[in-house]
Amino acid sequence: MFLPLIFSFALTTPVHALSIDGARLNGTLQKLAEFGKNPKGGVSRVAYSEADKNGREYVLSLMKQAGLATSVDTAGNLIGIRNGSKPDLKPIIIGSHIDSVPEGGNYDGIVGSLSAIEVAQTLQDHNRFLRHTLKVIVFQNEEGGHLGSRAVTSGLTPDDLALTSLSGKKIGEGIGFIGGDPDRLEQGKIAKGDFAAYIELHIEQGGVLEAEKAIIGVVEGIVGIRRWNVTVTGVPNHAGTTPMRMRRDAMVGAAEFISGIHKLILKTHGRQVGTVGKIDAEPGAPNVIPGKVRFTFEVRDLDSKKLEKLYQDALSLAHRIEKENGTAFDFKETYNTAPVLTDDFIKSQIKAAARNRSFRTLGLPSGAGHDAQEFARLGPMGMIFIPSRNGVSHSPEEFSSPEEVADGAQVLFDAVELVDQR
Amino acid sequence: MFLPLIFSFALTTPVHALSIDGARLNGTLQKLAEFGKNPKGGVSRVAYSEADKNGREYVLSLMKQAGLATSVDTAGNLIGIRNGSKPDLKPIIIGSHIDSVPEGGNYDGIVGSLSAIEVAQTLQDHNRFLRHTLKVIVFQNEEGGHLGSRAVTSGLTPDDLALTSLSGKKIGEGIGFIGGDPDRLEQGKIAKGDFAAYIELHIEQGGVLEAEKAIIGVVEGIVGIRRWNVTVTGVPNHAGTTPMRMRRDAMVGAAEFISGIHKLILKTHGRQVGTVGKIDAEPGAPNVIPGKVRFTFEVRDLDSKKLEKLYQDALSLAHRIEKENGTAFDFKETYNTAPVLTDDFIKSQIKAAARNRSFRTLGLPSGAGHDAQEFARLGPMGMIFIPSRNGVSHSPEEFSSPEEVADGAQVLFDAVELVDQR
Repeated sequence: MFLPLIFSFALTTPVHALSIDGARLNGTLQKLAEFGKNPKGGVSRVAYSEADKNGREYVLSLMKQAGLATSVDTAGNLIGIRNGSKPDLKPIIIGSHIDSVPEGGNYDGIVGSLSAIEVAQTLQDHNRFLRHTLKVIVFQNEEGGHLGSRAVTSGLTPDDLALTSLSGKKIGEGIGFIGGDPDRLEQGKIAKGDFAAYIELHIEQGGVLEAEKAIIGVVEGIVGIRRWNVTVTGVPNHAGTTPMRMRRDAMVGAAEFISGIHKLILKTHGRQVGTVGKIDAEPGAPNVIPGKVRFTFEVRDLDSKKLEKLYQDALSLAHRIEKENGTAFDFKETYNTAPVLTDDFIKSQIKAAARNRSFRTLGLPSGAGHDAQEFARLGPMGMIFIPSRNGVSHSPEEFSSPEEVADGAQVLFDAVELVDQR
Repeated sequence: MFLPLIFSFALTTPVHALSIDGARLNGTLQKLAEFGKNPKGGVSRVAYSEADKNGREYVLSLMKQAGLATSVDTAGNLIGIRNGSKPDLKPIIIGSHIDSVPEGGNYDGIVGSLSAIEVAQTLQDHNRFLRHTLKVIVFQNEEGGHLGSRAVTSGLTPDDLALTSLSGKKIGEGIGFIGGDPDRLEQGKIAKGDFAAYIELHIEQGGVLEAEKAIIGVVEGIVGIRRWNVTVTGVPNHAGTTPMRMRRDAMVGAAEFISGIHKLILKTHGRQVGTVGKIDAEPGAPNVIPGKVRFTFEVRDLDSKKLEKLYQDALSLAHRIEKENGTAFDFKETYNTAPVLTDDFIKSQIKAAARNRSFRTLGLPSGAGHDAQEFARLGPMGMIFIPSRNGVSHSPEEFSSPEEVADGAQVLFDAVELVDQR
């Protein structure tokens, strides 16, 4: 009579469900916040700074404490290995990053990094071994453009290495500074199919989970981004002596586009977003009708066809405005990353793990980029989100409660165990 | 039988109509263009520069040649007097300025200044004396804010004198440099009612006369200007993780205002103009929803009630946008000059002068400020416009043809004679 129940239990959760130690995890979160701490809250721990280097030392000590075999790969990523019971199975990779933006917060990347170590620590505490090898990675310089994760997946170019990072060091120098070897990056690379799963826990950095009162976000994918520099050219002229009907006002053209494309993106079915973040006018005097207005325009969505459709809609709108007010629009694409989708099986196991703990879940896209997207090109990837208070991120006000952090780490632990049983 | 005709003729034109020398006038225009000449055309003859000082010397020599009794007033304005036959009549003042904006043109102010001297030269050539004393004034630093004309009308403040001009010299220093005495400005002041008429010839600096194929613009007044710094405050947020419906996007608010107020000004009956010339967004990154957008907004019209109405309309529009997209608008007034109207009698005499020469006229407002507006507060003022090619001004492309310049000067001469007969 009880057999079917036991059978079903065994399929979805480990025989003895283990609990991570939320207090311990939140303790390490507080301690790491000391490295690069700002007087007004949050941290400035940009990659390759002293604060970054010291923070990494602390993280490495936590990895060792958790029984992981540690190393620094040639890209400067921190690696911690816990061997699995089946040596022929590819590893399950979990991790995130601990570098921050200038005047950043204490949660972005950090929650995922320390939770991954907490997963290893919990396994160690209970002397439990997964079937798969567990590989914890703390990536370097995520905020500068996923440098660490790109180095070991698609690779870095000499141009990447020559770029100056926010620390003042060139990327290549920075990698050397934190113990990597920029001349031997190829050695650290991970090939397609070299891992069983990549799972990253992260804060949402948006306000959807909070608004929907969900504890766990099951990420459906990471949006693609297309970004343009748009220039509207009209005719600069005297703001007093040029009658309204004789104007070819670049500012009015730009305003009509920005207002129009916003309405269009709002009314289009789906979760696409579009933003104009930067604008300036030339010559830029209060008493001169602008002859040129330049602004940035970007769209994000999980579907690249949708992105192309939005671009075509933008072009049509611009064309209509050109005819109406005698201006000319020019779009120069400056950025184009394809959307990546999360793996269906990993997604289902994250959902199951959350349901087993009675955590309300919500499926949502990640509107921000993550190290995870670099791995999605090489194998199955999944992501878990926890709520961000008021949706704020990249700021000292960034916050997720100790409970939310612990719940996220628990779901990460459980999902790893579920995926391990496949 | 012929008497009524002769009688009517005597009422509107002098018995022997004189012609100004258009070739001579255009010759002096070309010579003055050598002072501060730019390689790519036009002049940079900003007030108080060496080019300005040398150009003024040349203009002073022209005044002397025209038989004018010359002086430099304490404000640094060049003065040329030709006594009238009725010493008890107040003078008729004609003139303009010869300073330019950086990389300016060869017509703005210059046409009016040299035409005023040509009027005196023509009278001298024919040994003709007006009833009124003729006072030619070439004002200093019109482009910097009507410094010369304000000095002798409403006066300058210590703050005005302490401002740094485009020459690098403080206004006070500049006045000394060109032969004025900043400590004795009161001495140069002209009181209310101290002149019979002020008449200024100027290029239109707009494209209305050209579009309407008119040779002479009869200026109806100089528009009032109200200008604001507008700040739209929303909530800065991540451009990827913030769904469209959760945004309080300051850029969208600003765009809706700029587009909306343009439509409103266009559809309002009248000749009012409104311009947004300068804009920027904060933080100003392509991937951040702007939390603040700042822009300038100005309106110009001959009717101050209309200006106030447009301001109230702008506030209502802003209020509607605030409600719709959760942003807050703030308007700070930075500039407010009242409109001034031209004198009906002078206007009628300019029109009559042009009609007598068979020049097509058009009544229009001046959308730009002029020295004339300072004088309008103290007595009867009139202005004559000639066409600006393509409406361009403050640029090396500024152009009015030699014929247009000569026609303008002729109408100035004739109008002065008509007004003199009153």
